[in-house]
Amino acid sequence: MRPRDVAGLVLPGGERAARIAWARLVEPEHRAVAERIARLGAEEALQSLDLASPLGRQVMPRLEQLDVARDLEIARRTGLRLLVPGDNEWPAGLDDLDIPPWCLWVTGPLNLAKQAERSVSVVGARAATPYGTRQAQDLGAGLAERGVCVVSGAAYGIDGAAHRGALGVEGPTIAFTAGGVDRPYPRGHDGLFALLRRHGLVVSELPPGHAPTRSRFIARNRLIATVSQGTVVVEAGLRSGSSSTARKAAQHQRVLCAVPGSVESAVSAGCHQLIRDENAVLVTDAHEVMEAVGPIGLLAPQKRGDQRPADGLDPVQGAVYDALPVRRPASVDELAVRAGLDARQVTSALGLLSLAGLSRQESSGWRKARQPST
Amino acid sequence: MRPRDVAGLVLPGGERAARIAWARLVEPEHRAVAERIARLGAEEALQSLDLASPLGRQVMPRLEQLDVARDLEIARRTGLRLLVPGDNEWPAGLDDLDIPPWCLWVTGPLNLAKQAERSVSVVGARAATPYGTRQAQDLGAGLAERGVCVVSGAAYGIDGAAHRGALGVEGPTIAFTAGGVDRPYPRGHDGLFALLRRHGLVVSELPPGHAPTRSRFIARNRLIATVSQGTVVVEAGLRSGSSSTARKAAQHQRVLCAVPGSVESAVSAGCHQLIRDENAVLVTDAHEVMEAVGPIGLLAPQKRGDQRPADGLDPVQGAVYDALPVRRPASVDELAVRAGLDARQVTSALGLLSLAGLSRQESSGWRKARQPST
Repeated sequence: MRPRDVAGLVLPGGERAARIAWARLVEPEHRAVAERIARLGAEEALQSLDLASPLGRQVMPRLEQLDVARDLEIARRTGLRLLVPGDNEWPAGLDDLDIPPWCLWVTGPLNLAKQAERSVSVVGARAATPYGTRQAQDLGAGLAERGVCVVSGAAYGIDGAAHRGALGVEGPTIAFTAGGVDRPYPRGHDGLFALLRRHGLVVSELPPGHAPTRSRFIARNRLIATVSQGTVVVEAGLRSGSSSTARKAAQHQRVLCAVPGSVESAVSAGCHQLIRDENAVLVTDAHEVMEAVGPIGLLAPQKRGDQRPADGLDPVQGAVYDALPVRRPASVDELAVRAGLDARQVTSALGLLSLAGLSRQESSGWRKARQPST
Repeated sequence: MRPRDVAGLVLPGGERAARIAWARLVEPEHRAVAERIARLGAEEALQSLDLASPLGRQVMPRLEQLDVARDLEIARRTGLRLLVPGDNEWPAGLDDLDIPPWCLWVTGPLNLAKQAERSVSVVGARAATPYGTRQAQDLGAGLAERGVCVVSGAAYGIDGAAHRGALGVEGPTIAFTAGGVDRPYPRGHDGLFALLRRHGLVVSELPPGHAPTRSRFIARNRLIATVSQGTVVVEAGLRSGSSSTARKAAQHQRVLCAVPGSVESAVSAGCHQLIRDENAVLVTDAHEVMEAVGPIGLLAPQKRGDQRPADGLDPVQGAVYDALPVRRPASVDELAVRAGLDARQVTSALGLLSLAGLSRQESSGWRKARQPST
């Protein structure tokens, strides 16, 4: 299968490229697209798109500007990693979502999948009180000291304090942003973002250049709610974004915790409501968060069965493995385009993948081997 | 049955007098005495007491000073009401206790049984913060405004603030004291006690003259925990008296509520622990307390079946009814001694009680009629 014309545009083939394209074409949580991808795969969903259909007409303006090769080039040049479901570094928690991200743009030295496996989201009000800020920072530090990655949204107030608590003890922390990872928001947190890029991770489902918008914040919150084993709300107003993140976490069977505070504080009202109405566990320190989250993962022994088939591959082998189609075989040249490698690298990697039982050669080219049972 | 010699002392007959005697002879929550009374009735338990037995030897020093007639005289002179189980004004909640009070000394213009039927206990730390004091006062006022009687212990801090909140809106409030009702404690609350006596109630299971002691405080807490439909802890340290009152309330299927606060406050730690470990309902205002307590009584329509046989009697009729034995009949003269009335008043009252189906004449005298089924 080669790059193919859609509406006169050249699209690179392959699931990975197609997902990168979808991230440019539609907003997060586009239900019709999610259903097409689930039914057809991302690539087929794109290539069979009827441009006269409602969805076709909707994506047309962005389709005209689509340039996946440029996205891949941006990623290469700026050190971003582009993840799609099934990648080693793809965080498994997001697969629980009705509409997972089409892809993720990631920057920073940590392994997203590994950190997410043992992580807690700490969220709350931008207009935090000094009390809430202290609590968020203490929780961030206390969790990170225990080897738990602190997930948040890098906003003013609780989010920033939670990240800083983790960074302050040189612990792991991940920020999910509502715009592209090259568009840190708020600008007042430029310094925090620099630290997160250097020591933690900054992650977005939105391509570089995208500004954060209200609907993207709401979509982003579902990632924070599901990527980790549990969510702690430190301060939140009634009917706030943090309350809604908390409810999403609970809906997805994540442990929900809330820090109590003065009943006279408007930003503790949301926490009290979560404890009263959503069965959130009242927590007063990191230890109690660990206790609450523990039973569903943190304190349980690490499961061995969590390994993915491509664990242990080097970056070139991984790129080729990722480029291999599941069904219709692809030629070495096609794989080279998809993986962004030259044909010699691809041929060498295919040999090793074949020995490892991960690739399979057929008359018309190469495809993924059926996953070995673990 | 006439007053009878025990160890050379004249004891007035009758259950009421015997209970008043027991309150002088032993401390609250004396298990062996409770079991004797349950088995024999208070009067028989006293009159058949073997003074050579361990219990007999234990009560001997106090037996020598016993003077029930003087207690009755004190009550009459100082306007105290003496209640025993089965009296109209006896609060039904106390019957749930393993060891109910032998009797209650009551002063103030309210009807204890009626107020207790629709009451909430508000308790907490003596060393309350300004925050806790405000909350206790607000809750006291908010509950009293809704016609709910505020029960507490008249201590410094949360207790006093709760009473004052209720008094401030001219609402009903009851203090249970750990010493005799004539020994208000702390002395710094003399003014509060004066208000409680004038507008609310002061209640104790200890006879006049008894000083509050540590074990009497602990015993008193079980009355606060069970007399009402629910208990709210406003501020409490870990392993504090208030926490223990709260646990007693929960053990007796009373609704348990706790007010959250700063996790940095030692006197909110007990509240947070109750919410975490004892399933206390987190409450932030009086409305939420009503909501929590409502299902078991407050919001439910008043039950008609709660009326007692002697409801509607005037004081003389009530005293005679109370003096009537359940089993062995008593003469008019005996009843006059027991009720503190003259024979003419007793005869007149017996006639009316008989018409109402409440008393029954037999060859040897009068006794209570079997309670009419309601």
